Amino acid sequence: MGRKSSCVKPTLVTILTFVALYAFFNTFLTPINPNPLDSPFSILSSYNSPNPSVKVYLYDLPRKFTYGVVESYLKARDPSVSIPVNDVKYPGNQHSAEWWLFSDLIKEDRYGSSVVRVLDPEDADLFYVPFFSSLSLVANPIRPAAVNVNSDIGSVYSDEEMQQGLVEWLEEQVYWKRNNGWDHVFICQDPNALYKVIDRIKNGILLVSDFGRLTSDQASLVKDVILPYSHRINSFKGEIGVEGRNSLLFFMGNRYRKEGGKVRDLLFQVLENQEDVIIKHGTQSRESRRMATQGMHSSKFCLHPAGDTPSACRLFDAIVSLCIPVIVSDQIELPFEDAIDYKKIAIFVDSDTAVKPGHLTKMLRKISTEKILQYQQELKEVKRYFEYDDPNGTVNEIWRQVTLKLPLVKLMINRDKRLVRRELIEPDCSCLCSNKTRARPTF
Amino acid sequence: MGRKSSCVKPTLVTILTFVALYAFFNTFLTPINPNPLDSPFSILSSYNSPNPSVKVYLYDLPRKFTYGVVESYLKARDPSVSIPVNDVKYPGNQHSAEWWLFSDLIKEDRYGSSVVRVLDPEDADLFYVPFFSSLSLVANPIRPAAVNVNSDIGSVYSDEEMQQGLVEWLEEQVYWKRNNGWDHVFICQDPNALYKVIDRIKNGILLVSDFGRLTSDQASLVKDVILPYSHRINSFKGEIGVEGRNSLLFFMGNRYRKEGGKVRDLLFQVLENQEDVIIKHGTQSRESRRMATQGMHSSKFCLHPAGDTPSACRLFDAIVSLCIPVIVSDQIELPFEDAIDYKKIAIFVDSDTAVKPGHLTKMLRKISTEKILQYQQELKEVKRYFEYDDPNGTVNEIWRQVTLKLPLVKLMINRDKRLVRRELIEPDCSCLCSNKTRARPTF
Repeated sequence: MGRKSSCVKPTLVTILTFVALYAFFNTFLTPINPNPLDSPFSILSSYNSPNPSVKVYLYDLPRKFTYGVVESYLKARDPSVSIPVNDVKYPGNQHSAEWWLFSDLIKEDRYGSSVVRVLDPEDADLFYVPFFSSLSLVANPIRPAAVNVNSDIGSVYSDEEMQQGLVEWLEEQVYWKRNNGWDHVFICQDPNALYKVIDRIKNGILLVSDFGRLTSDQASLVKDVILPYSHRINSFKGEIGVEGRNSLLFFMGNRYRKEGGKVRDLLFQVLENQEDVIIKHGTQSRESRRMATQGMHSSKFCLHPAGDTPSACRLFDAIVSLCIPVIVSDQIELPFEDAIDYKKIAIFVDSDTAVKPGHLTKMLRKISTEKILQYQQELKEVKRYFEYDDPNGTVNEIWRQVTLKLPLVKLMINRDKRLVRRELIEPDCSCLCSNKTRARPTF
Repeated sequence: MGRKSSCVKPTLVTILTFVALYAFFNTFLTPINPNPLDSPFSILSSYNSPNPSVKVYLYDLPRKFTYGVVESYLKARDPSVSIPVNDVKYPGNQHSAEWWLFSDLIKEDRYGSSVVRVLDPEDADLFYVPFFSSLSLVANPIRPAAVNVNSDIGSVYSDEEMQQGLVEWLEEQVYWKRNNGWDHVFICQDPNALYKVIDRIKNGILLVSDFGRLTSDQASLVKDVILPYSHRINSFKGEIGVEGRNSLLFFMGNRYRKEGGKVRDLLFQVLENQEDVIIKHGTQSRESRRMATQGMHSSKFCLHPAGDTPSACRLFDAIVSLCIPVIVSDQIELPFEDAIDYKKIAIFVDSDTAVKPGHLTKMLRKISTEKILQYQQELKEVKRYFEYDDPNGTVNEIWRQVTLKLPLVKLMINRDKRLVRRELIEPDCSCLCSNKTRARPTF
């Protein structure tokens, strides 16, 4: 009996120890915040799925559409360059999201992401097409007038042929045909990327910078995702404050732009003689990036006028510089606007008002230091959304945005299948229209 | 030492016991499937948030907008009726979702729901306005030509005054004004519910039956949620099978309808002399519901032609009867279509084809028993989506659908705040357009 009892006790202790160990690992070593994007600023965080369970299939495209584009880009600049097959490096570029997303999906450890990569397309919710469409557009330093068949590096790279080739390849794929492309994701961050084939892929989720060159039946806030450009100047590592930020307003960039960007020349005219404003004409170069870094890190406000299209990488340079953006771009669409209240981090001025002589500087000078510090604090909190290299940054947020499209994708797939032939007076569209009381419609 | 040792052991056992108990409760009594809507059919289930964390504030409307509507309805039919204040019962009605959702939100135990009710509006993501708008529309048996001020039950109930009163009340609320109503949820299931004020509340998420009486800037698949009607006949409790289902096709309902419903009379003409088809003119009554129950439970297929608007409760009667719906309603929109592939549970025939003599019956007779059983099996699996009284049914699914709108709601709120005045050539809308290759557009 005594022996039996002493036998039972250690066994009980052993069992309890195992259960306790299981409890310990299960309870305390389970991540308590499985979604590292959670923060007070991410107002959507409360309903983020903590399980990364939207399944994405990464198309194994022919190499020419991915690494091959980088190789073509580098060879077009230096035909003698030697590129190790296993160490292809994407060149520095404001449209490098295509590289970041591709690199992310092929990574082993993707903890914290809203999507998981699946290797069997049967398991996939969404299909990612990793063509480097923005780099492809600029692979040739100057787009060739005609293909030079006698070139000793073979035929000159043709972006248009690449676009056509991609869609021809895709149209052979069973998963493309199955749902008319609704569940496919394309990246075309340069406003001209994929322009030749956009009508053939427009059912897909497009990852874009803005809708400047896209019609309303090709892309929209409802179907697509607005991406930030990669910032091209260094992040500001210091604390918030106005010390060291001696200039009021800073801008450096091309003075002359097409379309909405025409406002730039007018802004130069009203601002270039203001003593606390630094406004300079400059084009992309290492030296101008150095000067822009210095300017943005030492100014309170940074001007962001429209470019050829409403968006430009300068906005994101300003954000990571904690330089409060002053946005003069009436048609701009902004990344992750469900999660970020841009009114807290930027100042919006319509073009007509902004070009009134003296108006902009007068308005900015009136903003108190306390208010400036508030803006800076908010900028600091959202900064990571614009850092592609932050493990808790842009890449994860882009995937989260993509997952939010899935319910409408599934709806459109199911609805398309059962729609009958019918006479329609208007296109069959479901829309979300902004509050017109704030706009000044001419219709 | 011996004493110490014997003291340590029980203490260790005690500690381990507590840890083990904690482990047990934490590990095994935590729901392993926190979202009871998960099923192989719910293709979206994998990314449902397992935490019911979208926060909804239920407006404490003046009583006249909720229980008061029921009282007015009952008193208009029997002025002598006595209604206990704490036991107001909503009358049987195909538009009873307004009652189900209200009753659900005021329940204590809301386990399994995608939304939690919060009592402080500051905490809310969304605001639910529980006006019984559909019952209000029919509170008077016949809408009065003029208000009878001499009536001894006070003035005659006026739905229009109620609608106006609701919006006036709402427009005084701070949370309504704060975001221009984008984060408010309204139920207006009868196609005419809230018709008088719809333009003032159209920013909100509307819970509707279809878009038959709504313009594209008032409601859409993107912004709003399509609800099923409450089925009005009893569910079929038996197993799948064709035994006992001797008729091919069944329909009972009003032969004459306006607009899209004109197809009904044409369908009667081509079907009424077919021997295995039961097609009867009938209006709502207890007796006709009994006959419809019997007919739908003993037929293989159930016809669902458009009514005055594209939807009708007959579709949901058919589904819960496991009677395969034959849908002849070219503009129909269907509830929960992201989660349900209706092509698997119903047959869609365009109106032009359906009214060709002999066509419909010939097509249905060709469908094999095996295929019929497949349809029935799928119907059985989705049936719970159409059962308002199922704890794992319609009510939870409606809330899940509402939560899916939140990212776009937040986006529109933030975007509206920072939009500048601008000249627009077209309305400022973001759209999702269906694949036009399957439609026959006339534009």
